[in-house]
Amino acid sequence: MSRPPLPFVPPGATLVPADEIRRRLAGLQAMLAGRDLDAALLVQNADLYYYAGTVQQSFLYVPVDGQATLFVRKVAERARLESSLDAVMELGAFRDLPARLRERYGVLPSRLGMELDVLPALRLRSFEKLLPQAVVEDVGRDIVRLRAIKSAWEIERIRAAARLADRVCARVAEVLREGLREVELAGLVEAEARRLGHEGVVRMRAFNQEIFYGQLLTGGSGCVPSFPDTPLAGTGLSPAVAQGPGFRRISRGEPVLFDFVAVRDGYMADTTRMFVIGELPGELVRAYDAALGVQEAAIAAACPGATCAAVWEAALSTATREGLGDAFMGHGVGQVRFVGHGVGVELDELPVLAASSYELAEGMVFALEPKFVLPGLGAVGVENTWALTAAGPERLTLAPQDIVAVG
Amino acid sequence: MSRPPLPFVPPGATLVPADEIRRRLAGLQAMLAGRDLDAALLVQNADLYYYAGTVQQSFLYVPVDGQATLFVRKVAERARLESSLDAVMELGAFRDLPARLRERYGVLPSRLGMELDVLPALRLRSFEKLLPQAVVEDVGRDIVRLRAIKSAWEIERIRAAARLADRVCARVAEVLREGLREVELAGLVEAEARRLGHEGVVRMRAFNQEIFYGQLLTGGSGCVPSFPDTPLAGTGLSPAVAQGPGFRRISRGEPVLFDFVAVRDGYMADTTRMFVIGELPGELVRAYDAALGVQEAAIAAACPGATCAAVWEAALSTATREGLGDAFMGHGVGQVRFVGHGVGVELDELPVLAASSYELAEGMVFALEPKFVLPGLGAVGVENTWALTAAGPERLTLAPQDIVAVG
Repeated sequence: MSRPPLPFVPPGATLVPADEIRRRLAGLQAMLAGRDLDAALLVQNADLYYYAGTVQQSFLYVPVDGQATLFVRKVAERARLESSLDAVMELGAFRDLPARLRERYGVLPSRLGMELDVLPALRLRSFEKLLPQAVVEDVGRDIVRLRAIKSAWEIERIRAAARLADRVCARVAEVLREGLREVELAGLVEAEARRLGHEGVVRMRAFNQEIFYGQLLTGGSGCVPSFPDTPLAGTGLSPAVAQGPGFRRISRGEPVLFDFVAVRDGYMADTTRMFVIGELPGELVRAYDAALGVQEAAIAAACPGATCAAVWEAALSTATREGLGDAFMGHGVGQVRFVGHGVGVELDELPVLAASSYELAEGMVFALEPKFVLPGLGAVGVENTWALTAAGPERLTLAPQDIVAVG
Repeated sequence: MSRPPLPFVPPGATLVPADEIRRRLAGLQAMLAGRDLDAALLVQNADLYYYAGTVQQSFLYVPVDGQATLFVRKVAERARLESSLDAVMELGAFRDLPARLRERYGVLPSRLGMELDVLPALRLRSFEKLLPQAVVEDVGRDIVRLRAIKSAWEIERIRAAARLADRVCARVAEVLREGLREVELAGLVEAEARRLGHEGVVRMRAFNQEIFYGQLLTGGSGCVPSFPDTPLAGTGLSPAVAQGPGFRRISRGEPVLFDFVAVRDGYMADTTRMFVIGELPGELVRAYDAALGVQEAAIAAACPGATCAAVWEAALSTATREGLGDAFMGHGVGQVRFVGHGVGVELDELPVLAASSYELAEGMVFALEPKFVLPGLGAVGVENTWALTAAGPERLTLAPQDIVAVG
């Protein structure tokens, strides 16, 4: 049958370059050597995309020395076009894996690293049955640490996501009007995000953590805490999801907090901006100014070599000095003890800007999100995504930071 | 501080009724007794929503006899309002769990069921350290089997999701026009879904399976296979997500396949409808008619007591008789060997309509999705969500099933 070739690779998509993959795999192999592991066998989507450039159903086997192999169950042809790896091989059944590994590498691993932080326990048992000679150790947390340092290419991807976020922020002001429901406004804004190429799926690594675009919260919704590890959550539309915009109608003079995660080519940028129909109460304007002050203090502290604790303390002490310690990063049971988080191919990456001794380093990219929750009034805050250079943090999300008043 | 109470429960949201929870827990306890387990400890969002009516960060402990307890880390106050359970208790730290269990139940479990099909291996290790006396066995797959039978209340929830899906299908015809990009059209339609209260998050149980609303595929995109366990995938916007609508511009005379998952109150309905600007080539119209024929044959076979294999065989033999066996449920490497799947609080529930001896029963709800992929031309198909009554399947998604021609 002479049909036109299938357009496996989306036109306009950016493939992960070969030198990126090579450098990442070299870092992974150095980690394996340091931990005395024979190999890693990676299976999770975000990690496959990071180390192979594809999320096709597959197993990425990375020996401590030598060439990595991607064994693909579905779809090998597509994986070959998307991935720069030289060794992309079709794998029939899961049970064939040991035989294929033996063919390729001569031996099976005795000490094997897998992503035990995300791999379901039953799946691990299947792998242990298949490779009974191997002791399996977690490398998921090592991968998270390795991924924390972004390359220039990755920062360009995040910059592209940030540009999308900026344009979507501008859209909020165009469509915001009295009487709209939160979720209706969210839908109008999300439509613009899609038009600009937002990929939809926002990956999070932690078990049970979910997010859909972010939070669009107005008035009292900003005060409603929920299960996610975030300062704000909102009502959501039902207890089944329990976060995000709800059916609440938007009124004049109340805070419209727009917290948005943009995703392009698998990479994310996270941003928050404030809007209002008419004018915000002075108390909220003052709290917003305090959030900008917290941002300034935290960014001044965020240099390569600083600990996360130094950034957190700078943020917390500024908030406290403003008399807003109780409102900082949530209120009461909803309060969280961090002011930012790494972003990359997952939304919950390192560094976590909290009271930890983890050190910032050049190449890290993080979202800093000082927010205040004022019971009865709502939430305000600002969030930007920053890339840490030798000279300090560079802001990637560039939408104006003033409260945008419409109508 | 005398502030108004926080609106924890979204206005308009439906709470899971107490008698639903009671009946579900009784079913779970009967399963535990049958498997000689002392208790189950449930932690995953979909299961928590199903058995406790809330997804707040918590552990649901269900002894084989007696009262279940929800131990909540975040946010207990919200969990109490959302859940009908009598015993909802605050839990400070994870490590306090054994002491709290001992207080409540006198003893710790020796044989404990957990959701090992979804629980990450490292989390299991933490639980095993915390409860070293317990042998932990999987109950995730049992829960999936128990959840396959829906109550009348659940079918009403799925019906509400189906109504949302119907209205969103109608929206496609209103906004479809030449030159739009797939993802742009998707965004316009998704905005309507949000206005109607779509919850966004589409939960899937299987590791690494992801979906964002569904697939909106046009022309050749319908022929592009990818990693998900679905007959259709599309290009997506990049190899990072590798499914769903892409940047392709829509032309006259090509198939616009709209596969959409609606979610309301945590429950889903799945539907597919066909659209075209102008007229479809006869080959595709004939294939679409064949899909309707496959649907009819499969539905005739889908009575309580029938095996999934009987439904699958009825579908496959009809497709083959139409001369479309090679195109059925995908083409080549993209072909899958099932024609439908259960839907409920997750998209990948039982029954799987494939060559299995699993028996259909009254109360099951499934999406039946006969689809054909014609290389070079695109994909066509129809999908409806059905509730299985004593008298046979009742269709819940009610949008007209003709190909909708616009312009």
